[in-house]
Amino acid sequence: MFIDKIKTEGVAHLSYILGDKDEAVVIDPRRDCDIYIEIATENSAQIVAIFETHRNEDFISGAADLAAKTGAPVYHGRALDFAYGHSVVNGDRFSVGNLSLEIIETPGHTLESISIKVEDTEFGEIAVAVFTGDALFVGDVGRTDFYPDREEEVAGMLYDSIFKKLLPLGDQAIIYPAHGAGSVCGDNMASREFSTIGYERQCNPALKVADREEFIRNKVNELHYKPEYFKKMEEYNKQGPPALKPLLCPPPFSAEKMEEAAQQGATLVDIRSPEAFAGAHIPGSLAIPFELLSAYIGFLVDVDNEIVLIAENIEQVSAAVRSLSRLGYDNIIGYFRNGMSAWEVSGRHYNSIGVLHAAETEARLAEGAPVTLLDVRKRNEFEESRLAGAKNIFLGHLQEKIHEIDRQQPVITFCGSGARAIVAASILIKNEFHQVENCFGSLQACKNINCRTIEGGG
Amino acid sequence: MFIDKIKTEGVAHLSYILGDKDEAVVIDPRRDCDIYIEIATENSAQIVAIFETHRNEDFISGAADLAAKTGAPVYHGRALDFAYGHSVVNGDRFSVGNLSLEIIETPGHTLESISIKVEDTEFGEIAVAVFTGDALFVGDVGRTDFYPDREEEVAGMLYDSIFKKLLPLGDQAIIYPAHGAGSVCGDNMASREFSTIGYERQCNPALKVADREEFIRNKVNELHYKPEYFKKMEEYNKQGPPALKPLLCPPPFSAEKMEEAAQQGATLVDIRSPEAFAGAHIPGSLAIPFELLSAYIGFLVDVDNEIVLIAENIEQVSAAVRSLSRLGYDNIIGYFRNGMSAWEVSGRHYNSIGVLHAAETEARLAEGAPVTLLDVRKRNEFEESRLAGAKNIFLGHLQEKIHEIDRQQPVITFCGSGARAIVAASILIKNEFHQVENCFGSLQACKNINCRTIEGGG
Amino acid sequence: MFIDKIKTEGVAHLSYILGDKDEAVVIDPRRDCDIYIEIATENSAQIVAIFETHRNEDFISGAADLAAKTGAPVYHGRALDFAYGHSVVNGDRFSVGNLSLEIIETPGHTLESISIKVEDTEFGEIAVAVFTGDALFVGDVGRTDFYPDREEEVAGMLYDSIFKKLLPLGDQAIIYPAHGAGSVCGDNMASREFSTIGYERQCNPALKVADREEFIRNKVNELHYKPEYFKKMEEYNKQGPPALKPLLCPPPFSAEKMEEAAQQGATLVDIRSPEAFAGAHIPGSLAIPFELLSAYIGFLVDVDNEIVLIAENIEQVSAAVRSLSRLGYDNIIGYFRNGMSAWEVSGRHYNSIGVLHAAETEARLAEGAPVTLLDVRKRNEFEESRLAGAKNIFLGHLQEKIHEIDRQQPVITFCGSGARAIVAASILIKNEFHQVENCFGSLQACKNINCRTIEGGG
Amino acid sequence: MFIDKIKTEGVAHLSYILGDKDEAVVIDPRRDCDIYIEIATENSAQIVAIFETHRNEDFISGAADLAAKTGAPVYHGRALDFAYGHSVVNGDRFSVGNLSLEIIETPGHTLESISIKVEDTEFGEIAVAVFTGDALFVGDVGRTDFYPDREEEVAGMLYDSIFKKLLPLGDQAIIYPAHGAGSVCGDNMASREFSTIGYERQCNPALKVADREEFIRNKVNELHYKPEYFKKMEEYNKQGPPALKPLLCPPPFSAEKMEEAAQQGATLVDIRSPEAFAGAHIPGSLAIPFELLSAYIGFLVDVDNEIVLIAENIEQVSAAVRSLSRLGYDNIIGYFRNGMSAWEVSGRHYNSIGVLHAAETEARLAEGAPVTLLDVRKRNEFEESRLAGAKNIFLGHLQEKIHEIDRQQPVITFCGSGARAIVAASILIKNEFHQVENCFGSLQACKNINCRTIEGGG
Repeated sequence: MFIDKIKTEGVAHLSYILGDKDEAVVIDPRRDCDIYIEIATENSAQIVAIFETHRNEDFISGAADLAAKTGAPVYHGRALDFAYGHSVVNGDRFSVGNLSLEIIETPGHTLESISIKVEDTEFGEIAVAVFTGDALFVGDVGRTDFYPDREEEVAGMLYDSIFKKLLPLGDQAIIYPAHGAGSVCGDNMASREFSTIGYERQCNPALKVADREEFIRNKVNELHYKPEYFKKMEEYNKQGPPALKPLLCPPPFSAEKMEEAAQQGATLVDIRSPEAFAGAHIPGSLAIPFELLSAYIGFLVDVDNEIVLIAENIEQVSAAVRSLSRLGYDNIIGYFRNGMSAWEVSGRHYNSIGVLHAAETEARLAEGAPVTLLDVRKRNEFEESRLAGAKNIFLGHLQEKIHEIDRQQPVITFCGSGARAIVAASILIKNEFHQVENCFGSLQACKNINCRTIEGGG
Repeated sequence: MFIDKIKTEGVAHLSYILGDKDEAVVIDPRRDCDIYIEIATENSAQIVAIFETHRNEDFISGAADLAAKTGAPVYHGRALDFAYGHSVVNGDRFSVGNLSLEIIETPGHTLESISIKVEDTEFGEIAVAVFTGDALFVGDVGRTDFYPDREEEVAGMLYDSIFKKLLPLGDQAIIYPAHGAGSVCGDNMASREFSTIGYERQCNPALKVADREEFIRNKVNELHYKPEYFKKMEEYNKQGPPALKPLLCPPPFSAEKMEEAAQQGATLVDIRSPEAFAGAHIPGSLAIPFELLSAYIGFLVDVDNEIVLIAENIEQVSAAVRSLSRLGYDNIIGYFRNGMSAWEVSGRHYNSIGVLHAAETEARLAEGAPVTLLDVRKRNEFEESRLAGAKNIFLGHLQEKIHEIDRQQPVITFCGSGARAIVAASILIKNEFHQVENCFGSLQACKNINCRTIEGGG
Repeated sequence: MFIDKIKTEGVAHLSYILGDKDEAVVIDPRRDCDIYIEIATENSAQIVAIFETHRNEDFISGAADLAAKTGAPVYHGRALDFAYGHSVVNGDRFSVGNLSLEIIETPGHTLESISIKVEDTEFGEIAVAVFTGDALFVGDVGRTDFYPDREEEVAGMLYDSIFKKLLPLGDQAIIYPAHGAGSVCGDNMASREFSTIGYERQCNPALKVADREEFIRNKVNELHYKPEYFKKMEEYNKQGPPALKPLLCPPPFSAEKMEEAAQQGATLVDIRSPEAFAGAHIPGSLAIPFELLSAYIGFLVDVDNEIVLIAENIEQVSAAVRSLSRLGYDNIIGYFRNGMSAWEVSGRHYNSIGVLHAAETEARLAEGAPVTLLDVRKRNEFEESRLAGAKNIFLGHLQEKIHEIDRQQPVITFCGSGARAIVAASILIKNEFHQVENCFGSLQACKNINCRTIEGGG
Repeated sequence: MFIDKIKTEGVAHLSYILGDKDEAVVIDPRRDCDIYIEIATENSAQIVAIFETHRNEDFISGAADLAAKTGAPVYHGRALDFAYGHSVVNGDRFSVGNLSLEIIETPGHTLESISIKVEDTEFGEIAVAVFTGDALFVGDVGRTDFYPDREEEVAGMLYDSIFKKLLPLGDQAIIYPAHGAGSVCGDNMASREFSTIGYERQCNPALKVADREEFIRNKVNELHYKPEYFKKMEEYNKQGPPALKPLLCPPPFSAEKMEEAAQQGATLVDIRSPEAFAGAHIPGSLAIPFELLSAYIGFLVDVDNEIVLIAENIEQVSAAVRSLSRLGYDNIIGYFRNGMSAWEVSGRHYNSIGVLHAAETEARLAEGAPVTLLDVRKRNEFEESRLAGAKNIFLGHLQEKIHEIDRQQPVITFCGSGARAIVAASILIKNEFHQVENCFGSLQACKNINCRTIEGGG
């Protein structure tokens, strides 16, 4: 018997392959799905079924492709009309060697969400584990804002799914959710990726509610952002997305080719570190440091755009191509060979960005200098703690709301650490703001040096 | 936060590294311990403590070496006088990032056995997991035969450790034991390596007892074998074993060198498949197919002997060298280059072994032919089911008891599948038995073709 | 600047990627062609041209697929009407960074064969290296038997290509041929894969001829075998073969499924070692030990047949699937899970093959026993040295000529070492020969124990 | 037969393993020498001899360690009194399978330098290849400045070694030198790493001399730099350096620990890209971008100093630890966990460096601004081409000559591309120069935008 968790960084997605004897099943496969076949093969097992706990919206599913490659059927919840695969209903059973799987319909995050109970028939009929999809996470529960007109109804569904279906499986059941910390599908997940029904029942903050009403109220009051590309992803995952082509590295571009590509409309995405971007960058390029790529590309670059990458090295290019493909960004037409240095020695113009320490930032504001402190964190982060006088525009919305910023004043970009701030700085500069400085350290540094901050409220 | 299970095949040993933020701890490290440092490094963490749940007897510990390489202290139970590391007592606490670990003394398997409770202080004080060492396994409990004079006492200790200390941690706690299925430290472990206190409480057959007395009775009635090399291992693990030298492949031997080595007393160990050994092998060589190597080398070859390997290929040599080193067999002086073929084309003599199908075996016995059916399984396997007229000598004791076998009669070697039988056949031939046949398929084949077998009794 | 030789074992094919600055070219790519893109990427170079020194007949080209994946054009010699790519003529030039390549038409092995001279323009105009395709090897020259009606003409062409075009490039030029030792495209290649025009001019036995006539005479007198599948390969490589699908491991088969597949006409190919096959094998299976797979599958199994593999382990299955795909065998429908053991314990019947030492073989023949000594080596090997009384049928032709063997007599299969002999033994047994023994060691053992052999003659 | 070239980036060192049948020899092994044993093992060969073409001065030899691990003897030239290994003389022969090696004494680069001729006895007695050490490179010859009092004498020795011993081996011999492009042991090596005696005879610029006198004159006029650490390396390589300990990653440091370490005298070496250092860096840290690390650490940091690394990521840390170990820098006590970001969010002060485009640099100089343009290239580069008014101090000597720079004036750091310039900038800032700007692009950019430069002269 074996279970492997396959974690996809960036989207913090967790998928699983569970096998016994010569059979295996896959839960929520990602787009680059050969890995499941490889693990099955290492265990001399054949994939006999593929489950999707729900139609994902934050990455492209590999279910249809994996089904084509293995001949295994795909199973989904029945409440959505998928163009491929089969519907399952509460109580449906599947066997995998000596394991028995049972479908539990757990709507809430989405209407068609299912969970899957796992029994080991050699030992008993109680659940040894349960795949909980986006219903129950470690330390949090799924977001319920995808049906804006029915917010309270679906939040109530989620309550019922958790309290009436999952918790009754027993404290002893290990949970295997579809996301870990860092996912956009829940804000408060634990960095710990192992837990049980019993532990969550007793320790999950989202379950510490007096009653169904309080649970619903909490969910409805949550704030979530949703990038444009979610729609494309949802459509894909309902219809069956195109199979992934081999992930070969795009061709290397010279400085000349970079210029040409930019002129023809390609987006130059610079995935180097924030410090490197501040040090020198190609005019017109968009900074999205690699760590932020999966989380922000969907807000900032249209999925059909051609993209050229500027990276530290070829390994980073490869990793970025792979991450982007998981979100459906397949148009990476090239990368900049030899990084910034080739651009610099070509004699072409390059930009740098001034940096401003937290102490200087506070001092500048304190002395009443005519400056915009642009804080690009999420509204809930901002409301929790901020510098006085800061203006909040969420980074994902900055391009649309850029007219709200006074062009006559210098701007200091600001976030939690300075990373998202550099993305904001690059957007401002692309849009011809000429006095932009970035506060490396940002709010965390402010706190560590005891700047005065405003906490809470709105 | 991260937890990685490092599984060592052969001895079915499970060790763990658990980390949070920039700290990590290792539980029960194996001898080739660089892997823990590599995992810590990947997670940008430093190993700050090493725990041994008990002094292991079935493999060499890497605790002392890992301590030397990382500077981290080693902690053991206090009931044994280790020559290195520090003693811990019930209730001692250690922190790893946001995790809090608490020592629970759980004697029984050995007197100094400890378990380690894990709390996630961000979420609560109940156990999210517990490292159970050799006290509680998935589907079984630890063996209690290491203190022959105090059998009932230690079995009772184990009962108390499990029922009064581990089960009270709560059903929600995930268990991380030190062994999985295939270990000599318990016969009935599940092939499933994930479970919880709650699941074991309800489903573990060894815990389904009326009372403490029944538990003790069951344990005392168990039969376990213990190879000679356990003593060396125990001594090593108490004193602090020598660090492992780099595991470089031994030099390739020609046919001439093989002969020389054998003449000078080296043991030629043939780790190829049972079928290949039957097809052709070097006279005087000992068959131990790779899959059986860790389990039987300790019974069959003295730990100080020089060993030359005969393998399918160089990858198998490397894997064997690694497996053997984990048991303290460091004297692999060479391997046979180009496998059997080089021996054959050299013109040297080679042997083959006749094979006998289960049906023929049964027929031979039925017709009263003068033949010894030598069944080399463990006594409990033999008692459970066997062919009429079979003689049982446990493979691990065959060398000492070989005089019990009639040299005048043909011998058919027999076990569960034919694999251990080929080891027995090689031992007989080395000892100048001239009429030896091997029953491929053995008892399993007998059952599948409905031979008449005797079930149960003794 | 970089050059990498990519060696494909089995067919002993050598392909190359040569790059400078951000450009690279590939010479004679194999079917699984992602490796060239990976190497180019590591060197931050883009593949800008693909050359085929000739239409290969012994493996499937990856040129068309690599062209599709990279956009790079394919270039061939003009004397064959390829369905894809472009024709080149003597003197055509290509640049790769600072390197300059020049086409040299070198017909002989095939009419459209080309070689490619390499100059380093930073240093001079003389050749620093030359890709010689199948014209000039290390220690041999290409075979010239592909145009049976024009044997002397094409042998003369090859003489001219080598003596009038390649040797004049100068002693200093390194040669990069398309095959190494073990290829069917030449019998006497050196195991050394590095050489120069000057070294071959002075030391290549095939070039040590008095004149053009002697060279032609030697070539015409050579004996080569050509399996059926060469035709398919040739057709493929002229038309542009289908791209390789991802090389995923086939599904594991149970004993039942093995039986079913065999009944429905699949060929069971056992790629384990000769000794293991002799020890026990599935009735009806064809032995082709992994080392012989690429060389003999084309003679023994139709390319359109379904194949099930019996292997030592999953790694060997994967390697075999890859090797077979390079020859166009894409129909591997499964492999036998758990190897022979699963068959044996199922209670199904299995066969073994008696083995006979060289000394016994000689003795048996000497005493005039009624036995056929079947030597399945190539005719030229047989003529060079053999046991008296042996009957020679080349292994590749055994299936067609099996009626030439007396079914009433025992047969001893024999070759150079016993490996090809086991293949022959498996064919005889499949064809209901009931008394077959295999001589492990075969001729090499005979020589090492000083059996009397007949040398030379015919 | 097999030959593998093992290239060590940074020091551009080329070592080799050459094998035939079950024997192999290693030429000029590097310190992390397990790779040779691994390659030998893959080829089922045993290392039977180790040759050092000369006592290396630019990296630590692995010969003694490899000898200890394999039992193979080490051989050197006799003109130096090595504390380990054996002396060889002209004409000594060694066999490796069918290969025959012959020692050729080729002094010049050092007195004890040897070359090794390779014959393939199956084909003839002429050289098929020759290991040329630091006597003859591809496109250059070895430096001859290591005996300052005997410059002309040793240059003459090198002439004789090449013209009277190596070239006479014949044009057909492939050369395998000990260094490739980028080495400090010769300035003009080709980026191409394959060549022959014949090609070098005709195309190597260093061999295009009228006579011995001209060759000597050229050599004596060459300028080479020699860092302090060469002495340690030479001593090590004469005595037999200590074996390399396992290359485990050092522990991660927090911002606090970084500060502590710096206070206790550790050198903080920042190996991130020049742009990232310019963007933000820890005050007091020394920039040596990873690509420059092997070339400049020996000039800038004492080999006994404790070092803490600041890197992009953990992979870069590992690579740096390995590179540094090859030069004997074994004191890497930690690395900065989470890179610069952890420093920034801690609220600690950080620095950035202003950047200046080539055009602005030229303009600033043209307008006569009071500024020092500090060009840190080697003297020969500087003399070849430079901006008017530039001051040249070789980077390797900057720390000693820093008093030559006017502290009152702003400094613009300058080199070929801006990379070495950032190292210089970091040194100036550490030494409390307060107005430092870095010219990214430097001379190459100047040329590409047609700045006026001074060419040649002195």
